[in-house]
Amino acid sequence: MGFYIGRGRKARQAFGFDEVAIVPGRVTINPEETDTTWRLRDMEFTVPILAAAMDGVVDTAMAVEMSKLGGIGVLNLEGVQTRYEDPDEVLGRIAGATPEEVTHHIQELYKPEIKEELVGKRVKAIKSRGGTAAVSATPARAERLGRLAEEAGADIFVVQSTVATIDHVSTTYPTLDLQTFIDSMSIPVIVGNCVTYDVALDLMEAGAEAVLVGVGPGAACTTRGVLGLGVPQVTATVDAAAARDFHQKRTGTYVPIITDGGMDTGGDVCKAFASGADAVMIGSAMARAKEAPGRGYHWGMSTPHGDLPRGARVKTGTGGTLKEILLGPARTDDGTQNFLGAIKTCMGSVGAKNIFEMQHAELIIAPSIRSEGKLMQRAQGVGMWR
Amino acid sequence: MGFYIGRGRKARQAFGFDEVAIVPGRVTINPEETDTTWRLRDMEFTVPILAAAMDGVVDTAMAVEMSKLGGIGVLNLEGVQTRYEDPDEVLGRIAGATPEEVTHHIQELYKPEIKEELVGKRVKAIKSRGGTAAVSATPARAERLGRLAEEAGADIFVVQSTVATIDHVSTTYPTLDLQTFIDSMSIPVIVGNCVTYDVALDLMEAGAEAVLVGVGPGAACTTRGVLGLGVPQVTATVDAAAARDFHQKRTGTYVPIITDGGMDTGGDVCKAFASGADAVMIGSAMARAKEAPGRGYHWGMSTPHGDLPRGARVKTGTGGTLKEILLGPARTDDGTQNFLGAIKTCMGSVGAKNIFEMQHAELIIAPSIRSEGKLMQRAQGVGMWR
Amino acid sequence: MGFYIGRGRKARQAFGFDEVAIVPGRVTINPEETDTTWRLRDMEFTVPILAAAMDGVVDTAMAVEMSKLGGIGVLNLEGVQTRYEDPDEVLGRIAGATPEEVTHHIQELYKPEIKEELVGKRVKAIKSRGGTAAVSATPARAERLGRLAEEAGADIFVVQSTVATIDHVSTTYPTLDLQTFIDSMSIPVIVGNCVTYDVALDLMEAGAEAVLVGVGPGAACTTRGVLGLGVPQVTATVDAAAARDFHQKRTGTYVPIITDGGMDTGGDVCKAFASGADAVMIGSAMARAKEAPGRGYHWGMSTPHGDLPRGARVKTGTGGTLKEILLGPARTDDGTQNFLGAIKTCMGSVGAKNIFEMQHAELIIAPSIRSEGKLMQRAQGVGMWR
Amino acid sequence: MGFYIGRGRKARQAFGFDEVAIVPGRVTINPEETDTTWRLRDMEFTVPILAAAMDGVVDTAMAVEMSKLGGIGVLNLEGVQTRYEDPDEVLGRIAGATPEEVTHHIQELYKPEIKEELVGKRVKAIKSRGGTAAVSATPARAERLGRLAEEAGADIFVVQSTVATIDHVSTTYPTLDLQTFIDSMSIPVIVGNCVTYDVALDLMEAGAEAVLVGVGPGAACTTRGVLGLGVPQVTATVDAAAARDFHQKRTGTYVPIITDGGMDTGGDVCKAFASGADAVMIGSAMARAKEAPGRGYHWGMSTPHGDLPRGARVKTGTGGTLKEILLGPARTDDGTQNFLGAIKTCMGSVGAKNIFEMQHAELIIAPSIRSEGKLMQRAQGVGMWR
Repeated sequence: MGFYIGRGRKARQAFGFDEVAIVPGRVTINPEETDTTWRLRDMEFTVPILAAAMDGVVDTAMAVEMSKLGGIGVLNLEGVQTRYEDPDEVLGRIAGATPEEVTHHIQELYKPEIKEELVGKRVKAIKSRGGTAAVSATPARAERLGRLAEEAGADIFVVQSTVATIDHVSTTYPTLDLQTFIDSMSIPVIVGNCVTYDVALDLMEAGAEAVLVGVGPGAACTTRGVLGLGVPQVTATVDAAAARDFHQKRTGTYVPIITDGGMDTGGDVCKAFASGADAVMIGSAMARAKEAPGRGYHWGMSTPHGDLPRGARVKTGTGGTLKEILLGPARTDDGTQNFLGAIKTCMGSVGAKNIFEMQHAELIIAPSIRSEGKLMQRAQGVGMWR
Repeated sequence: MGFYIGRGRKARQAFGFDEVAIVPGRVTINPEETDTTWRLRDMEFTVPILAAAMDGVVDTAMAVEMSKLGGIGVLNLEGVQTRYEDPDEVLGRIAGATPEEVTHHIQELYKPEIKEELVGKRVKAIKSRGGTAAVSATPARAERLGRLAEEAGADIFVVQSTVATIDHVSTTYPTLDLQTFIDSMSIPVIVGNCVTYDVALDLMEAGAEAVLVGVGPGAACTTRGVLGLGVPQVTATVDAAAARDFHQKRTGTYVPIITDGGMDTGGDVCKAFASGADAVMIGSAMARAKEAPGRGYHWGMSTPHGDLPRGARVKTGTGGTLKEILLGPARTDDGTQNFLGAIKTCMGSVGAKNIFEMQHAELIIAPSIRSEGKLMQRAQGVGMWR
Repeated sequence: MGFYIGRGRKARQAFGFDEVAIVPGRVTINPEETDTTWRLRDMEFTVPILAAAMDGVVDTAMAVEMSKLGGIGVLNLEGVQTRYEDPDEVLGRIAGATPEEVTHHIQELYKPEIKEELVGKRVKAIKSRGGTAAVSATPARAERLGRLAEEAGADIFVVQSTVATIDHVSTTYPTLDLQTFIDSMSIPVIVGNCVTYDVALDLMEAGAEAVLVGVGPGAACTTRGVLGLGVPQVTATVDAAAARDFHQKRTGTYVPIITDGGMDTGGDVCKAFASGADAVMIGSAMARAKEAPGRGYHWGMSTPHGDLPRGARVKTGTGGTLKEILLGPARTDDGTQNFLGAIKTCMGSVGAKNIFEMQHAELIIAPSIRSEGKLMQRAQGVGMWR
Repeated sequence: MGFYIGRGRKARQAFGFDEVAIVPGRVTINPEETDTTWRLRDMEFTVPILAAAMDGVVDTAMAVEMSKLGGIGVLNLEGVQTRYEDPDEVLGRIAGATPEEVTHHIQELYKPEIKEELVGKRVKAIKSRGGTAAVSATPARAERLGRLAEEAGADIFVVQSTVATIDHVSTTYPTLDLQTFIDSMSIPVIVGNCVTYDVALDLMEAGAEAVLVGVGPGAACTTRGVLGLGVPQVTATVDAAAARDFHQKRTGTYVPIITDGGMDTGGDVCKAFASGADAVMIGSAMARAKEAPGRGYHWGMSTPHGDLPRGARVKTGTGGTLKEILLGPARTDDGTQNFLGAIKTCMGSVGAKNIFEMQHAELIIAPSIRSEGKLMQRAQGVGMWR
């Protein structure tokens, strides 16, 4: 397992969505009769998709709408929603900024302190309209914001950092004791992101009730370009799923894994499930919803790094309502709408009655990108299929 | 056989046309003396090419013309040909629609019910002009349309769905019992599409007299993008050919396999045969014929999926007469004309006297696409060969 | 050796120039002191480069100039040089034709019969000015044209077809008995093209004094696109070199192999030698010489195939004198000039004193094309090296 | 270890930066607490980055600035700095030349003889302002220029050629006896460039106190295109690191290796360290500093090769101050600024306290370039991450 990349040094080969495909099954099922439900503690969700905790993707209205459609929208507790009484105005300024000024603008707009009273206010805004209140913070602020969220009635708390571990070393600032923190919380805590078997297992043993999988997914991820860091999502998901299955065998507890990032199309999402995911977290594709707070724009981490920014504002455009994107009907044939329809049709084609069966669909290594040149050629008029 | 794509999970490597090449033989043959005939029950066809059952590719006139040239044109029984008394007018409207309105247009134009009396009418139109009447339906309508086609004198019936199996599970609608259906038909039934050894064998055992091979062939296929589903055509064809050979060993019956989709050039077609195909089914390249009903356009499945469309209208342009495309003379050097000439010249170069020998030509793994960059560079004036 | 491409079917992996690189040696040599001489029977050539037998590349003047510089220019005996008393006028018309009319023009211009008296005239024109008269024909005309060339005093005869074998089967036309033909010729006969160990050995055993290697080299070769046929040049050259070495071991006779086609840059040429070549044959890069008859254009085979053309006219432009292209000084840094300088510098860097040592330079698999994306990025201003 | 590239011939697979990624660790560290120091004899440098010895990258002011920031700027002793009393005027002319005339201009401007008195003058200019005086020469001039540099008080001497060995054969010019030369120098001598275990070990045994690693790194390097020569940097670095570790085991002496070339982003730099580098040498990215002498341009070797140029003038543009590029804060998110921040953040993410630990970070094979097509697609508005 692994190739020599030089004298005395081996490296595993890792695979991303572009490099695999799902093999149709010997038995097929009516897609309408497939079950896509996933569970988190005692909660059930019919749509196994979470909208990412990014300011251009989820505000309270979006969280409510995601809930109504069967999914989850995670609200970022360290962004404009908790720094501003009226985040809409700020979101409008980011959307309206010129490309030249936007990075500086964002850095400035994220400088005001988090207003703790707004944490509860946002949670309640979601709850009052019947939504699932899922909120996120970084490890540094998890204890404080977690407490506030819990008190306000949040349903799910997410502790998210680019690279999560149970062991972060620093002599200059206090670090989060993840197990103690999770034990102290009455609501389920999702932790991430990780990409290896060992860390996924560590997080599960520390009590995470779901684990986010994904660091530097895909070439376009700036973490990969800026830091060289990352593991393609198929391998990361397969490895985390192996940790989940081992953890269940040892403890009896099933900790769902959520593949986070790198999925542009229904095909990518289906491959995440075939790799072993229980649910997926999506950013850009959700930012394209008419309901998304980003007004057709999407930008990076909650607290932009002052010295080493990773993730500028990107124009996603708006491509349909959230309902069309999640449940269809799709009005495009490029796989960016009706994600649930894609999941169900794919499950039908491989004969998977539910997500657990879908996790065992056969994958093949089938590089799509090698045909890219051909694709371009065809795009000039030779035809898109057959 | 297979690589680890993560902990405890292996995947086979699959290959497409772009990734292989055919090795010239030690003996060569005068191309004029190679025999490209293939057989279906008691019928013989000198040109091993079928035009795909798509509304932009085959109407009754095209089916007749394909027959005259030695091939087969399959008429779609669930498209405009059976929904409209005068399909030409409808085809004209699709060709004339703007890109913005075309998807909606197509969805609307395919809503009228199938007029059963038109099934017989179309079959007879082909037969009366001496053509081979090959017609197709999806499994849901196979029994009804199959009966009508047979009664009208059709020669070949094709049951085609994106992913075919002998076992489709649904509690809400009746499913086709393939074996019973085929047994009840007096004319040969071709079934597809499949991409694995097991399903190809299942279909053969159910009585299919030919099997269509191809799901999501190539990056451009929207099934691959939207659902993540597919197996590249070289591997799919090799596997189906292995099923065919095993089936013949066990039962004495030779069931031809027809590679369907993903072939743009003569080179791709030659590789399909070298992978084990008995015949090929082609869409886009046939849609470019002056005789094609699509008027330079090509579009997807017979019954567009209302919720999850896969296959918008694509401009193919028109690039020669059907005769030039099938038999030459080619007026271009890009491999999109004179497919039979390409097959015969390639057979001559590998020393294959007939299709059976061609199925054993040596293939090598020889990624063409990696040189794409170089190609572009050259296209700017350095020369196309040498 | 080989990968499974499907059930029960293995294929070797083949490699082209873009996929390998040459490893610098432990000892280096002053490039000026390397020896690039190669030998054909009793002739020695200091520049191991042949200009291809194509009408846009070699006329009698170009053949003389190639000789003076130390190489060989092969004159095509089945093109405009032997069909027209005044080929220059015809070459001018091809260069002057519009892109739309050029294919038809070429087909028409190659229709007049070969004038046998011109064969001797062209050979003598080369000899009278002190050039090496190397002339080529296809197998069908080899006996007739070979006799005429020999009588006129030609030095080398080349029998060249897309795919050469010693065994070509036809019941409708007489085929060339290669061994008998070569035995009957008093001058050395070069035969090609081949890409496998077996055929290279067959040709050597039939008496070929050098063997041309290359079928469908690279993605840009239309033989690969139109027929699917070809073996990348590194593997083809390594295999033919193995045949050469085995043949020498068995018979004591060393038959040089000439890698033909697919080389755009000095780097490609160096890799051909490191793969085992004794000499290389180059088309496009030579067509760019100011002295080339093509006037900045280059086109395909001597007798264009009426039904299945492979190789249209391509604009190469003119990029320096033949001397600059062969021996330098290079005025560009893209590797398209001073091929001999590149060969000698590379030989110095790997510590190869002569071509035989260069044939054993270490190659690594080092895909250059994967960085193509990066390349483009950089081309927009980030820098070309470091 | 190795694949067959043809009959009887194996080749190792080599890897470049684009083909690997770094796996996050099980323990993470506060980036601020990581130590990036590297040592050369008794000198310590907090920033493990050297600016390349190229005229567009380093002049005396740049060398001083690099030193102040914790790194090293290497001054080329065979370029405009020692050929002209006033190099600024010459640098301005190169920057101002049109693309057509620049190659000829550079060839002319590098013709004047090296003025030996300027060697000492440049060294003193660096020393007098508190900089580390690191200067470079080719092997041919190393003895003469090394002596002059040493006398003037230089701190480090670099002997650099495209392909370095301890054994260069020539009968027409004297060759450098590297060991004798190094023994005779009182200051540390860095030697390069090499890419193999054997040569790296040879150089270390000859007394080099650091070894430069890199020949033809990446597709854009003209050495690879013009000569076919090169080894991708990950494999070259891993191999050289193995030589370093073996040399230390045998002799007790630790000879740092410096990966030189092919790094465009922080990610590439991080991968060099994860491959085993102690420091990196960077050209283009440093040429983009406002302080760089090239005025937004960058060009090749000190003494341009008259017959076979490799490395024309390239426009890099200017993209921030040297401080921003080296230490941040980055004002872009493309990885071209704050290299030290990237190194420290990556070290934190893999849990490496210092460079030695970073050299053992896990690498995976994870082709980024395959997603290039996807990248382009997304760049048109779908979003850059998630």
